[in-house]
Amino acid sequence: MRVLTLLTDFGETDYYVAAVKGVVLTLAPETQIVDISHQVVPGNLAEAAFLLSAAAPSFPAGTVHLAVVDPGVGSARRILVAETGSAFFVGPDNGVLTPILRDAAVTEVTRSEIFRTGPGQTFHGRDRFAPVAAALLRGELPASIGRRIEDPVLLPLRPVRQEADRITGHIVHVDRYGNLVTDIPVSWLPEGPVRVQRGAQSTSIRATHYGELRAGQPASLEGSLGTLELSMQGEHLASRWSAKAGDEVVVSWRTNPSV
Amino acid sequence: MRVLTLLTDFGETDYYVAAVKGVVLTLAPETQIVDISHQVVPGNLAEAAFLLSAAAPSFPAGTVHLAVVDPGVGSARRILVAETGSAFFVGPDNGVLTPILRDAAVTEVTRSEIFRTGPGQTFHGRDRFAPVAAALLRGELPASIGRRIEDPVLLPLRPVRQEADRITGHIVHVDRYGNLVTDIPVSWLPEGPVRVQRGAQSTSIRATHYGELRAGQPASLEGSLGTLELSMQGEHLASRWSAKAGDEVVVSWRTNPSV
Amino acid sequence: MRVLTLLTDFGETDYYVAAVKGVVLTLAPETQIVDISHQVVPGNLAEAAFLLSAAAPSFPAGTVHLAVVDPGVGSARRILVAETGSAFFVGPDNGVLTPILRDAAVTEVTRSEIFRTGPGQTFHGRDRFAPVAAALLRGELPASIGRRIEDPVLLPLRPVRQEADRITGHIVHVDRYGNLVTDIPVSWLPEGPVRVQRGAQSTSIRATHYGELRAGQPASLEGSLGTLELSMQGEHLASRWSAKAGDEVVVSWRTNPSV
Repeated sequence: MRVLTLLTDFGETDYYVAAVKGVVLTLAPETQIVDISHQVVPGNLAEAAFLLSAAAPSFPAGTVHLAVVDPGVGSARRILVAETGSAFFVGPDNGVLTPILRDAAVTEVTRSEIFRTGPGQTFHGRDRFAPVAAALLRGELPASIGRRIEDPVLLPLRPVRQEADRITGHIVHVDRYGNLVTDIPVSWLPEGPVRVQRGAQSTSIRATHYGELRAGQPASLEGSLGTLELSMQGEHLASRWSAKAGDEVVVSWRTNPSV
Repeated sequence: MRVLTLLTDFGETDYYVAAVKGVVLTLAPETQIVDISHQVVPGNLAEAAFLLSAAAPSFPAGTVHLAVVDPGVGSARRILVAETGSAFFVGPDNGVLTPILRDAAVTEVTRSEIFRTGPGQTFHGRDRFAPVAAALLRGELPASIGRRIEDPVLLPLRPVRQEADRITGHIVHVDRYGNLVTDIPVSWLPEGPVRVQRGAQSTSIRATHYGELRAGQPASLEGSLGTLELSMQGEHLASRWSAKAGDEVVVSWRTNPSV
Repeated sequence: MRVLTLLTDFGETDYYVAAVKGVVLTLAPETQIVDISHQVVPGNLAEAAFLLSAAAPSFPAGTVHLAVVDPGVGSARRILVAETGSAFFVGPDNGVLTPILRDAAVTEVTRSEIFRTGPGQTFHGRDRFAPVAAALLRGELPASIGRRIEDPVLLPLRPVRQEADRITGHIVHVDRYGNLVTDIPVSWLPEGPVRVQRGAQSTSIRATHYGELRAGQPASLEGSLGTLELSMQGEHLASRWSAKAGDEVVVSWRTNPSV
């Protein structure tokens, strides 16, 4: 039994998610379907790219991940299959697969006979993406449904900047608890005390897990992706600090002048 | 492995959806369960009927669709099984199955031995509907659990009206993106320009897919059910126009006086 | 195929739920996963305990129920497996399993080799609870992954008080429809009229199901757990009465002085 994950901005009040699943189960009946989220803010490619790359490593080898966040649906934008060593990723060629594409072989789907026809030309999730995912779930290889490309659309890169006494990165996600997830790998930080600053706010408290924190105290710790996370025990730090995805975060420390 | 879809107004903060699934998996273990939605506005039969009829065609033959939107739960209203050529639909006899009933053989469930008993008499989703769905999923036929009827309750019909130079229909659904889905089949419209009016607002722009639209411009296109849809690129048209399900929509065009 | 239920306060906008499921499907591929809810108010152990104990009885024998509501994640709090005659329950030792523990054999998980290592120490749902659930789903017994304990953490008990002419209990849950679910077993009440009071509001109307109620009239009935429930037809009674989980409810009746 193969696994399909599904990530969309369809919400949960429409029939769209169910229609995609129905088509997959029609074409690839023995599929185990797991939702990542359908609550992506409509058209927010960066949020979808983050969630996809965060969830994917937990899934079994051979999983097919389908991401349908597609504001240009129906236009000429390509449909991509990205193959990494261990999984397949299907999505529109609009940057939503960016974090995956670095280490993937990328195919543009060209075998349009596998698509369904309508009704309408607005629901590619049901009519195109679901059949592509189903083909992979049935064991077809990317080469059999398209041709290799080297120029997929990428989201603009915002690199993390390393200097002698500081690292500058960004908030990439605010989670339900108000934790601020950054793109700064904790392995890049020195041992010992660091100061983490976001706008006018900052904290010098460093922890290893939430249970250690005192109520009302902001602190930094290694989050579940190995990157720096900012958290406040019992409070929604993002609201408290008015912080949001995209904000810059600076980690600084005293360097030892004698070494 | 058979597929069960589930559509309710139970929401996602209670244990109700899980209890229904638990009973189904107890009685019909090899079932693949797919949620359509549990966010139907409590008691909104028209919304549920729309979602059910929109999602069902995408599912494999033999799928059992269970719709539990049932404000009169516990009263004497009947429990129905509707059988179309390709699927089974289970729901209360309150109109929620209306769009399905036109072409279906309808059975009232009378074999009450298959029901569970309580606790309480308020949770028919768990105690009655789930066992009925499970019986069908195990391969029982409607005839073995009830008797044919010809008088199911139907929601009031609001027909689409065709005239020489216009068609009058309705908004049947507002989706997450603010698109206005109507009940007007696009195949009924002439080729070429049409004017689509809803209250004081209107548009004469016609498109085939969202990617074509310019920001802030309302347009009509063929939606994913083959009916006319109104959409505005990058904006929630329903909010912008204060439009809602039930509103009347008029499509008009110039007729050629010489033909 | 074994069933796993999942109950968390992770919400549905993060990748957390998917990551837990991915690990389970990696370690125990043939698992059928059913969500109870992921909308528990962050850290609300009483709400989670209620939902878990309400949903569990509907599931097949052998089901593994995993509850991750864990504000102290990463601290030294233990990880528990509770085994009842018919199911396994996995959760942190913080009281979330309270209603289950009364009749269960309780094991503290000590075989840490089954845990995954990070990234980070903040996501025990993915790194510890999921592997424990997967071990049970693969057929391992609690004894093989831990040691029996007798002192699990319990939520404070708020007993229902019985007197000659009254019973005092509490609202334990407000459901989506605004119904007030109490902890007062209906089997403890006398036949005939009772008065149900919550703060300054009360009702003397007793019903067996919602369909009986008249619009705008509050009434009491036997809910889907066998306990007393307060409901108002077509209205959200909790909003109307400003009632919430934890509020005291008093049921009183006239005793017959001659008996």
